[in-house]
Amino acid sequence: MGSAEVSPWRRLASRVVYRNEWITVREDEVARPDGRPGSYGVVEVRPSVGVVAVDPADRVALVRQWRYTHSKMSLEIPTGASEDGDTDMAAAARRELAEETGLRARSWQPLGTVDNCNGVTTDVAHLFLAEGLAAGTSAPEGTEAIEVVWCPFQEAVRYALTGDITESVSVAALLKVAALRNQPAGRD
Amino acid sequence: MGSAEVSPWRRLASRVVYRNEWITVREDEVARPDGRPGSYGVVEVRPSVGVVAVDPADRVALVRQWRYTHSKMSLEIPTGASEDGDTDMAAAARRELAEETGLRARSWQPLGTVDNCNGVTTDVAHLFLAEGLAAGTSAPEGTEAIEVVWCPFQEAVRYALTGDITESVSVAALLKVAALRNQPAGRD
Repeated sequence: MGSAEVSPWRRLASRVVYRNEWITVREDEVARPDGRPGSYGVVEVRPSVGVVAVDPADRVALVRQWRYTHSKMSLEIPTGASEDGDTDMAAAARRELAEETGLRARSWQPLGTVDNCNGVTTDVAHLFLAEGLAAGTSAPEGTEAIEVVWCPFQEAVRYALTGDITESVSVAALLKVAALRNQPAGRD
Repeated sequence: MGSAEVSPWRRLASRVVYRNEWITVREDEVARPDGRPGSYGVVEVRPSVGVVAVDPADRVALVRQWRYTHSKMSLEIPTGASEDGDTDMAAAARRELAEETGLRARSWQPLGTVDNCNGVTTDVAHLFLAEGLAAGTSAPEGTEAIEVVWCPFQEAVRYALTGDITESVSVAALLKVAALRNQPAGRD
């Protein structure tokens, strides 16, 4: 990925067509990669976080909540959008884990980022592995009705493969941890 | 996930606030899980597909393209939105693979779905493993400037772990295939 990289798109104009507390939708007038005029609707969202929290018995803290967008119950790792002005995603991850599960963690390991729905949104999710857990008091937001489920790690991985877990950040983060465990030690 | 599941949200009204060829943004008036009034902006997108295409030398077909939303070059498996009225996601996957890479495949294995950015969008990506590849002619759309990169499968998995691949559908699909290869045969 080393070469100089220049956008094949040109943005000619931009206007906000919708905004709420969570998203800003803008429509850009563009010249497309083939040079022809077009428009591009971009959904701007703040960066988000996702946390694989594993306890000493190798159980992972999952949360079960209704997803309004998909009209379904969803089993996920704790995830959430950062707040306006957040620059420290590890801090956002600590806050999100505490809010949804009450948990604190002594050890935090970054697992990289994933870009969600990158044809449409700006969503970048920052993934973390949290260990050394201590219980506390959860404080979900009014938009959340969340149930915490402790699940053996290998079962959570199986859920990601069988489709019991489908949320993209959860699937990516759980399978990243599984893949890292499968790597020979000392590689890289 | 067996219990009867009822939405803790109530939709009171709905209006479309923006629409283009790819997305419809609607704002719903709702009663939130805590019973308080609120609004929810939902970005409706058509289901999408993602294809891990592996050749007999165990190389995977990746595509490199500029992502306008993130203003960056992105290395990904072939992905794309289905078309209006598409009901057969396997057919959409065959079409997308052919469009972006020119490849046809004899063997198709579904790898389940992932929900992208599910706090905001309705995006469900249908994942497939394609094998038994034959070359053909690609036909990218005018909105796409795509370069095909053949990459050893294990290196692609490493890219998903190191952050050289960050697109969520690619990360999920590549790590699913890796995890399935690591499972003892005959399990499930």
